[in-house]
Amino acid sequence: MRTVDWAGDHLVVIDQTALPGELRLIELRTVDDVVDAIGRLAVRGAPAIGVAGGLGVALAAVLAARAGHGADRVRADAARIRAARPTAVNLGWAVDRVLARIDDGPDAVVAEAVAVLEADVATCRALGARGADLVQGMTHGPVAVQTHCNSGALACVEWGTALGVVRALHERGAVREVFVDETRPLLQGARLTAFELDGLAIPYRIVVDGAGPTVIARGLVDVVAVGADRIAANGDVANKVGTYPLALAAARAGIPFIVVAPESTVDRATPDGAHITVEERDPVEVLTWAGVATAPRGASAFNPAFDITPADLVTAIVTEGRVIRPASGEAVHIAGRD
Amino acid sequence: MRTVDWAGDHLVVIDQTALPGELRLIELRTVDDVVDAIGRLAVRGAPAIGVAGGLGVALAAVLAARAGHGADRVRADAARIRAARPTAVNLGWAVDRVLARIDDGPDAVVAEAVAVLEADVATCRALGARGADLVQGMTHGPVAVQTHCNSGALACVEWGTALGVVRALHERGAVREVFVDETRPLLQGARLTAFELDGLAIPYRIVVDGAGPTVIARGLVDVVAVGADRIAANGDVANKVGTYPLALAAARAGIPFIVVAPESTVDRATPDGAHITVEERDPVEVLTWAGVATAPRGASAFNPAFDITPADLVTAIVTEGRVIRPASGEAVHIAGRD
Repeated sequence: MRTVDWAGDHLVVIDQTALPGELRLIELRTVDDVVDAIGRLAVRGAPAIGVAGGLGVALAAVLAARAGHGADRVRADAARIRAARPTAVNLGWAVDRVLARIDDGPDAVVAEAVAVLEADVATCRALGARGADLVQGMTHGPVAVQTHCNSGALACVEWGTALGVVRALHERGAVREVFVDETRPLLQGARLTAFELDGLAIPYRIVVDGAGPTVIARGLVDVVAVGADRIAANGDVANKVGTYPLALAAARAGIPFIVVAPESTVDRATPDGAHITVEERDPVEVLTWAGVATAPRGASAFNPAFDITPADLVTAIVTEGRVIRPASGEAVHIAGRD
Repeated sequence: MRTVDWAGDHLVVIDQTALPGELRLIELRTVDDVVDAIGRLAVRGAPAIGVAGGLGVALAAVLAARAGHGADRVRADAARIRAARPTAVNLGWAVDRVLARIDDGPDAVVAEAVAVLEADVATCRALGARGADLVQGMTHGPVAVQTHCNSGALACVEWGTALGVVRALHERGAVREVFVDETRPLLQGARLTAFELDGLAIPYRIVVDGAGPTVIARGLVDVVAVGADRIAANGDVANKVGTYPLALAAARAGIPFIVVAPESTVDRATPDGAHITVEERDPVEVLTWAGVATAPRGASAFNPAFDITPADLVTAIVTEGRVIRPASGEAVHIAGRD
């Protein structure tokens, strides 16, 4: 089952807000449906929202053709989809790529969006293999891995980024255990990563986010592996809030901190982390859980959804095409490649 | 109202598991009541469980005298109280201090326990003033403070340690804002620290634990101030899990990381953090919130209640009698003082 898929004239996505209690598929039949699904995190994970955004533009093109609207309507819809969330660069990348075919008619737009969808699967498989090779080259024997948030199949189409590396290592018999940060406020680790690891029969233990750094300091893990929402040109990495403390702890413990993401997450137009827009979400996410207040009535909260890990703490960035070592001074932007 | 108090022949404590929803007082009339209240965190915070432990021994002495039991019964009860939680050294310290009066009869035991109770109030006032002086000497203008867990009046008797410093600064008009880590799994920050700050009318914002380090990295706070459950002879500090990442982030950002605790939290018998017993609590605390599962059925969790912050990350330790600067190489154990 795919996290995001195209069904001829609409999207079908797994509603990730219902997991792990219920595996619920929802159909997105309007552009509003797509914007809403991305905004409320029914679809989340940088690669998955990129794919959903591209398919959203395809949906907009199909609907516009049916209603006799022109390209301007599709462009306006695409702008709304692009603005559904600010941090993951994959969203704008996919929307722009698919929208570029608008003058070739709706079939061409749909074909481009489906190409983005299919490419994600191949890309993630490549990430998994390359990342597993890298980890095995850095460690000895079956590894224990610390991860944060969800960078698995649910963050992509059917194979993950950082969790895809864990899955590839597991297929090689090379995983001992995974420590999963629960990832407050929305618990993508406890809900989604645990759900995926259960399905893959990979041993894991959930920890509260504050405990990840002590797991690292105690020597319980060999490597930290996470995904990314945007990688700046200098190698600074935006990822789910709570990633930065793992990078600090990994550097102090002398273990590798690895970021696994497709090239579409690399944003050459953003020079460094200070220029990345970090989404601030509704404080109510922090102040409640499952409808139960976690704080006094009237309390205020600050809810940045992402943090920035500086390049010097990033041992390696693994993409489908290369391994970059920012902590060793390697640039993300390689002349001749870009 | 005191967090822990003595009512002639029993203890009266605030049940901190019911806050912030309800301010509920409970009476502890048996040694089992005391052990249970400490174990389930109805009473928590190193100074408060020290005071409760000392009063628990007084209760044991009163009950033994009433029933015609001897000192051996009181010693056995004291051993059970001492073992109620392993990490906070204050518990063993207070139990031993009060038990040392056992041969002088129950009135002397009670008097010693009440002296421990009263001393906490004076000690915390002194901590607050000394800590506020230190912070004002290190910063300019009203400060923003990052804290973790609860180190306020609820962690002590009626005035806090690290939050007591915030309170003293506030009385001087020198607090701009407090950022409060929610402190999963039991949310002492969101439930208890927010409750206290509301009562004191000090502005605050709650953040998820993963966001504390990014608050620091963004320059939103001038200082990190936390309490401690045990301070080793070399200056390593055990405190609520999630403290260590704040220390890492403070060091990276170049802002002070300050630990505020009474001398009774200093454990000269423990050479360093590696020798501190870190309590592991029930995984169910991680896997649920308010009775709602946060993870798939059957998921495993690892639930260390504390972490260790190495001495080199601790800018200063403030006690009622001195300021120690471990990051600058100052020893906790000062010849002639101990």
